[in-house]
Amino acid sequence: MYNREQLMEAVSSQMPAKRWQHTLGVMETAVKLAEQYGADPVKAELASILHDVAKYWPTDRLEQVLRENHLNPGLLQEDKQLWHAEVGAFVAQQEYGIEDLDILDAIRYHTSGREGMSLLEKVVCLADYIEPGRDFPGVNKLRKLANHSLEEALAAGLGTTISHLVEKNKAIYVLTVQARNDLMKQMPIMEGNS
Amino acid sequence: MYNREQLMEAVSSQMPAKRWQHTLGVMETAVKLAEQYGADPVKAELASILHDVAKYWPTDRLEQVLRENHLNPGLLQEDKQLWHAEVGAFVAQQEYGIEDLDILDAIRYHTSGREGMSLLEKVVCLADYIEPGRDFPGVNKLRKLANHSLEEALAAGLGTTISHLVEKNKAIYVLTVQARNDLMKQMPIMEGNS
Repeated sequence: MYNREQLMEAVSSQMPAKRWQHTLGVMETAVKLAEQYGADPVKAELASILHDVAKYWPTDRLEQVLRENHLNPGLLQEDKQLWHAEVGAFVAQQEYGIEDLDILDAIRYHTSGREGMSLLEKVVCLADYIEPGRDFPGVNKLRKLANHSLEEALAAGLGTTISHLVEKNKAIYVLTVQARNDLMKQMPIMEGNS
Repeated sequence: MYNREQLMEAVSSQMPAKRWQHTLGVMETAVKLAEQYGADPVKAELASILHDVAKYWPTDRLEQVLRENHLNPGLLQEDKQLWHAEVGAFVAQQEYGIEDLDILDAIRYHTSGREGMSLLEKVVCLADYIEPGRDFPGVNKLRKLANHSLEEALAAGLGTTISHLVEKNKAIYVLTVQARNDLMKQMPIMEGNS
């Protein structure tokens, strides 16, 4: 088993320094959000350390891991940007001995989201949007929303992803839409709920 | 059986004059698109006459028709704006004797779209976006796209719907996302295809 420092070293060696800075930001933010919303901060930090472990792997290596281990066959038809999350969860379990399913799912769904996200999944997914190093139109609005509602902030974050994909003429992953719709049902005050 | 004029009279009596003007615009545009892209203009016109037949029915009447006839049970969980299309297809068959499945599906999916749309479904759905009376940001871009690609124009139209729903904090219907993704796969030149 790897301890925290060994794990951080193993993961940071697989990505550029700038991306590791992002990971440190996600760790810090996820721990704060976990404390604020009642998730387990230790699990939140662990999932954050590992969430982008496969982000800078070559595409053909990601594809090979997905194929050889029969991971989520439909994912190979989706945008390659989604592949590192599924592979990351696999690597976390196989290489780094993470057995906690909630941590593995927080890694697996950190990019796409999904319907029925756990508290930990929401925390890691939102931290990935709003960590201090992030700078995109609307990020400060997400940070403000995060102060009072995990669901509202994350739904808004996924909304920025969906709008961005429309603007760039790219496919939209159905899981992301389902995640957003589901989060909106958890916000009774917000417009658009039936 | 209703002839064309009887059908137009029966449908127009169920909506405000302004909406009937919209229907006339959809008829004209759908016939043009059908001729341009090789769909059946007679079917395109018939589907267009009927597409909004239930648009101004009271919500509880739409709900009653959906429930009593066990039409698409999942639709009752979706935005009420989608209900009139399913009810419209039902009414077209039951009240107005339309038996052609492609016409019925062109009515049924004119608002949402779906994966695997037929040529006729695409024509009616796009005509609904770009008929001459429509005026929303981006509509002229859609009209230009419609001159050279049915799929590109309709994917862009569905994209405007998706972005609008994000902006308004409303749920996004999964069928619409699947329709757009599927149309994009039919445009080999466009960015975002794998």
